Amino acid sequence: MAKKILFEGHILTLAILENKWEVALHAEAVAVLVMKNREVLGVVQRRPAIGQKTWEIPAGLIDEGETPEIAAARELTEEVGLKGKLEFLTQMYSSPGFTDEKIHLYRATDLSSTFAEADEDEDLEIVWRDVDELWTDIKSGKLATSGPTLLALSLAKGYLDKA
Amino acid sequence: MAKKILFEGHILTLAILENKWEVALHAEAVAVLVMKNREVLGVVQRRPAIGQKTWEIPAGLIDEGETPEIAAARELTEEVGLKGKLEFLTQMYSSPGFTDEKIHLYRATDLSSTFAEADEDEDLEIVWRDVDELWTDIKSGKLATSGPTLLALSLAKGYLDKA
Repeated sequence: MAKKILFEGHILTLAILENKWEVALHAEAVAVLVMKNREVLGVVQRRPAIGQKTWEIPAGLIDEGETPEIAAARELTEEVGLKGKLEFLTQMYSSPGFTDEKIHLYRATDLSSTFAEADEDEDLEIVWRDVDELWTDIKSGKLATSGPTLLALSLAKGYLDKA
Repeated sequence: MAKKILFEGHILTLAILENKWEVALHAEAVAVLVMKNREVLGVVQRRPAIGQKTWEIPAGLIDEGETPEIAAARELTEEVGLKGKLEFLTQMYSSPGFTDEKIHLYRATDLSSTFAEADEDEDLEIVWRDVDELWTDIKSGKLATSGPTLLALSLAKGYLDKA
């Protein structure tokens, strides 16, 4: 497939495919749902791309040579200082109309604390919040979040309804 | 906020914010959940960005001057030839680590057929599918889809469980 690279950055490559389709090429990523009763574990961080802070479940890019599960375990440790048993929930493309970014979603259970050495670049605040309150605040626009986070919250509500 | 534009395309603008953050700027978008019993309405289309076909709920960009709800009604007509009552479900950023794309998710009910004048660029096949089969095929990797679609499917399962 004809691909013309227009810009190659650190996390993004902009390309034109078939002389027509503008795409932002991006590494695959992982996200991890962690629940304690009705609360879900999230991180609050500044997101320059949208000019505001978000509350998102722990997530990050898959490094070269990593499997999605290894990346999920690493992000869980780096971002929130936890390790646990990982269950694969599902996979999705963030927005396949313009980017190839793929997300692998996991749920972590049987959790224990572990030493967290944070990424230099990341300035994260760990915030547990009630799943229904989160849903209300996101729907109203009071709180900004990612697609994978909302999917995780919807699944979390399903797990709670069945419990 | 310091913003340096590196490339301005038709659907994507690539910029560097604060001399550091690479971001893909993109219009806001809408997506619409349509259900008939246990089946969900989707469109199968080729997605050059990921090199494969996807099954996704009807979705598209918000045009200049449109509200999200008007865009949702228009996409529902253009893509699948339907009109109905729109209920706002929630909103999310596709992947706020590198793009500002925001998605507004609706559910359409009280549906009726209407004349659909398809976008020239779009080659869509309309496919109704069972929500549980969809979930299985997406999780296994047999079927590719978007984050908003998976969220809609998760919500659809919740509606069915409560019905």
